[in-house]
Amino acid sequence: MELQKTLNWRYAVKKYSDRKVTDNDLQKIIEAVNLSASSAGMQPYRLFVIENSQLRKELGANSFNPQITESSHLLAFAAYENVTPEMINEYILHIAETRAIPVEQLDEFKTALGFFLGRTPEENFIWSSRQAYIALGTALIAAAELKIDTTPMEGFNAQKLDELLGLHEKGLKSVVLLSIGYRDEEKDAFAKLKKVRLPKEVLATVV
Amino acid sequence: MELQKTLNWRYAVKKYSDRKVTDNDLQKIIEAVNLSASSAGMQPYRLFVIENSQLRKELGANSFNPQITESSHLLAFAAYENVTPEMINEYILHIAETRAIPVEQLDEFKTALGFFLGRTPEENFIWSSRQAYIALGTALIAAAELKIDTTPMEGFNAQKLDELLGLHEKGLKSVVLLSIGYRDEEKDAFAKLKKVRLPKEVLATVV
Repeated sequence: MELQKTLNWRYAVKKYSDRKVTDNDLQKIIEAVNLSASSAGMQPYRLFVIENSQLRKELGANSFNPQITESSHLLAFAAYENVTPEMINEYILHIAETRAIPVEQLDEFKTALGFFLGRTPEENFIWSSRQAYIALGTALIAAAELKIDTTPMEGFNAQKLDELLGLHEKGLKSVVLLSIGYRDEEKDAFAKLKKVRLPKEVLATVV
Repeated sequence: MELQKTLNWRYAVKKYSDRKVTDNDLQKIIEAVNLSASSAGMQPYRLFVIENSQLRKELGANSFNPQITESSHLLAFAAYENVTPEMINEYILHIAETRAIPVEQLDEFKTALGFFLGRTPEENFIWSSRQAYIALGTALIAAAELKIDTTPMEGFNAQKLDELLGLHEKGLKSVVLLSIGYRDEEKDAFAKLKKVRLPKEVLATVV
């Protein structure tokens, strides 16, 4: 199983080299994120690929994560703060267009999606953030398959990032960062550490 | 890129055949989940592999997801409701043991993990659930790589499942289900539908 090797290869890189990820590889990672599963297929999040060093410097100030500025690229996953009727309408139209079917054929599905409109923004944001994390899981694997290193980061100044990217105006809130690049194996003490994982029987129970 | 093919192959199966997933393949999926990335490496969730048909029948009653009972196996991802000092202690001991280092070498890391103890249970549960979703993303890919079909399901009776499995007593709460098995391509109208995804430039913005 290739995936097992890929997952064993990856770790949260602390120290990156100067090597840049090519645009071709970057596009493959974005494509994998786009193919990630999401609840009802809604993809209720957006990805921001930050290369701009000034922006990363501002975001990285006072952060305990040098990876924000030192990696090749910084990916920010931002989830929608709520689900609106417009989002549902657009999504339904997009399905009809993609599958070349009359939009009326989706009436039942559209009604089912009304479920989201009956929830609080908080409930919908918990949901949309979780979908972004499925995509994060995919991105980690996509990068590792390309032998590109990554560091997922939750401890960042989300408010500052949201301001810098104008996310609130777009109805989005950043939830997690992923730096990508290439490990500096000599300078990263974590590169050679043994991976720590639960015994399989502690993680999983068969019932 | 193999992953892209794998992701294109998968869809949320509505109708399963009777074919069972072998124990060997099941173990590979569990292993992949165990190798998933998680914040600080904490793995703050557990996996329940439900084969028991009576249990699945009870859980599937009044559900709009026949996949709960009709698939080969049902995986339930359950996240810890909070982070306790005991969890941190155990984790630190486990790292020391795995890496064969004196536990004192981890003092600084242990202090850093104290961060979780200063948060509310609600904040920690939002966090632990998100980690479970990274693992869900990995499980989807692990299964698809083995040509095993899946259906992630959020709309289930979590309270009932928690009662059936005694999760609350373990400090856990179920967050998402994943049925696994083999698609019944003839009877599943969704098997041949075109995958609907955002144009890449709508999903991702380069800044």
